[in-house]
Amino acid sequence: MPTTLKEFEGVWPRIVADLEGHCKHYKLPQQSLDWFVKQLNYNSVGGKCNRGMSVVDTASILADKDLEPSSEEYFRAALLGWMIELLQAFFLVSDDIMDSSKTRRGSPCWYLVPQVGMIAINDAFMLESSIYVLLKKHYRQEKSYVDMLELFHEVTFQTELGQLCDLLTAPEDHVDLDNFSLEKFTFIVIFKTAYYSFYLPVALALHYVGAATPKNLQTSLDILIPMGEYFQAQDDYLDAFADPKVLGKIGTDIQDNKCSWLINQALRKVNPEQRKLLEENYGQKDGEKEAKVKELYHDLKLADFYEQWEEERVAELREKIANVDESEGLKKEVFEAFLKKIYKRSK
Amino acid sequence: MPTTLKEFEGVWPRIVADLEGHCKHYKLPQQSLDWFVKQLNYNSVGGKCNRGMSVVDTASILADKDLEPSSEEYFRAALLGWMIELLQAFFLVSDDIMDSSKTRRGSPCWYLVPQVGMIAINDAFMLESSIYVLLKKHYRQEKSYVDMLELFHEVTFQTELGQLCDLLTAPEDHVDLDNFSLEKFTFIVIFKTAYYSFYLPVALALHYVGAATPKNLQTSLDILIPMGEYFQAQDDYLDAFADPKVLGKIGTDIQDNKCSWLINQALRKVNPEQRKLLEENYGQKDGEKEAKVKELYHDLKLADFYEQWEEERVAELREKIANVDESEGLKKEVFEAFLKKIYKRSK
Repeated sequence: MPTTLKEFEGVWPRIVADLEGHCKHYKLPQQSLDWFVKQLNYNSVGGKCNRGMSVVDTASILADKDLEPSSEEYFRAALLGWMIELLQAFFLVSDDIMDSSKTRRGSPCWYLVPQVGMIAINDAFMLESSIYVLLKKHYRQEKSYVDMLELFHEVTFQTELGQLCDLLTAPEDHVDLDNFSLEKFTFIVIFKTAYYSFYLPVALALHYVGAATPKNLQTSLDILIPMGEYFQAQDDYLDAFADPKVLGKIGTDIQDNKCSWLINQALRKVNPEQRKLLEENYGQKDGEKEAKVKELYHDLKLADFYEQWEEERVAELREKIANVDESEGLKKEVFEAFLKKIYKRSK
Repeated sequence: MPTTLKEFEGVWPRIVADLEGHCKHYKLPQQSLDWFVKQLNYNSVGGKCNRGMSVVDTASILADKDLEPSSEEYFRAALLGWMIELLQAFFLVSDDIMDSSKTRRGSPCWYLVPQVGMIAINDAFMLESSIYVLLKKHYRQEKSYVDMLELFHEVTFQTELGQLCDLLTAPEDHVDLDNFSLEKFTFIVIFKTAYYSFYLPVALALHYVGAATPKNLQTSLDILIPMGEYFQAQDDYLDAFADPKVLGKIGTDIQDNKCSWLINQALRKVNPEQRKLLEENYGQKDGEKEAKVKELYHDLKLADFYEQWEEERVAELREKIANVDESEGLKKEVFEAFLKKIYKRSK
């Protein structure tokens, strides 16, 4: 049985208490301590926690038993999951400033909360630092401690490289379709999203159960990076083609000048006239121009093309999963569980 | 013989090449790679490199020989020094955004360079991540690798705690002298400055020569943290009392509402009338109000008080240095060299 958000959130207070205790040991003045606890809660809790919970679920599959939510072993797996949530919070708090976003998870972005402003930058740093405080406190004695430190360092740097490429490729205020390419799209997706959202949870769960052999890590990478690519292409498809009522939000990729899967596929299919239409209408805060781009997406039959492409990618993933060597403790079921959550999702 | 800035800067191109090579291995698109190299150079080079060079000098003293600038052992010590410079660059790029600063080292702050803006936040992250790329590449095989990782994590978090306390204690736009205290001043100085500027270089040099025993690290901490406190008090004293021509800049602490050593000492000495004067004139962008605060500093004889206080602190430091146990490879000369650079400095 997969863990629930309620169970996963149940361990959070203990994590806050650990971090608070660490700060008290340093005699951090109370005003600063209160601020830190407030921002920890504001920025880390309230999301779906898919990434964090998938550490627990993957660990359960690999250990071949459900982890009892009140047990120490549940806490230790969920703690690794919360480290991914802290890493994501570090990225989201700062991405929101870089993107001038207004809301996050239905509330104002942290930097827009009264009295916060640019202090949010230092708060983001502290979310990242919290990962290492927690790893040291709870995993220092483990054989895999150094590997986990290096894993977090590497995935953090990879995500930053993806974010840099994204910021330079698709600035919100400067449209240049020549700057887009499927190659850059792929780099951005893999580095900005796939490593930390798909590979990191499984790699951490492998470390948790003591099965993080080079071979198992490589197998996981070979499946989860393409799965992350597929996931992002699907996300981009849903942004333009899903029913906003089902999706739960209104897609804004076209107006936001995003280097999305759709625009990159469109750029490969257009004739010179259609290319001109894209250049005149993509990436502008104008509903009519957005509608013209969407019409072209329809003319190019991008929805059909996506659906075929999806079937091919899923078939490839299924074949890779079928070929997983389980001899070093990895299990096909880990990847089947990930794929099941993604395939044919509508939101 | 202490190393020179020219020698220290001489190893920088190899560090950039290492980081570039790492990014090329990831197939980072060229536009992003060019950006990364540009910001690395812009933000890391051009300062005095006191912190970085002190790793080399301390390592030389501990090893009892000058390191030959073209040698591999010089590179490896200077590399640790450059990691401190990268850590500082990470802090300075982001501090400049948080403080709305205009210039840094005589050039526009990075976030004010055309086309940069808030991308600077992600650039700051990448400066921090570079530390761990370099540590892994060059120090992974060393016994002290994990200790050095944890040292950087701890000092980074400590500096962030100091920065948080500073931002909350002395916001530029809201003066509240009740919020100041010598206790907070001391916390800010130790955490925001002393750990990374004084303790970190010596701790790294101890690891470098293989003499980072718990006792040597504790002795270094016991001397270098008070030395950092003394250094910052002196910095605050010079801000108000030094000749700007000698100091090389015009002090702005009073107008900037800084929680400085002087204002905290003044607050301990004032009568109610003088306190009122401070409340009406401190922390405002107004030269006349600043002059009134300075006049009160004179009336309170703060310069004399500082000079006495300095002599006491220096006497204490000298006694601690005299008592250093050199049996585990630490040397008094390390601390004498630090103190010599600070005592009676005029800029």
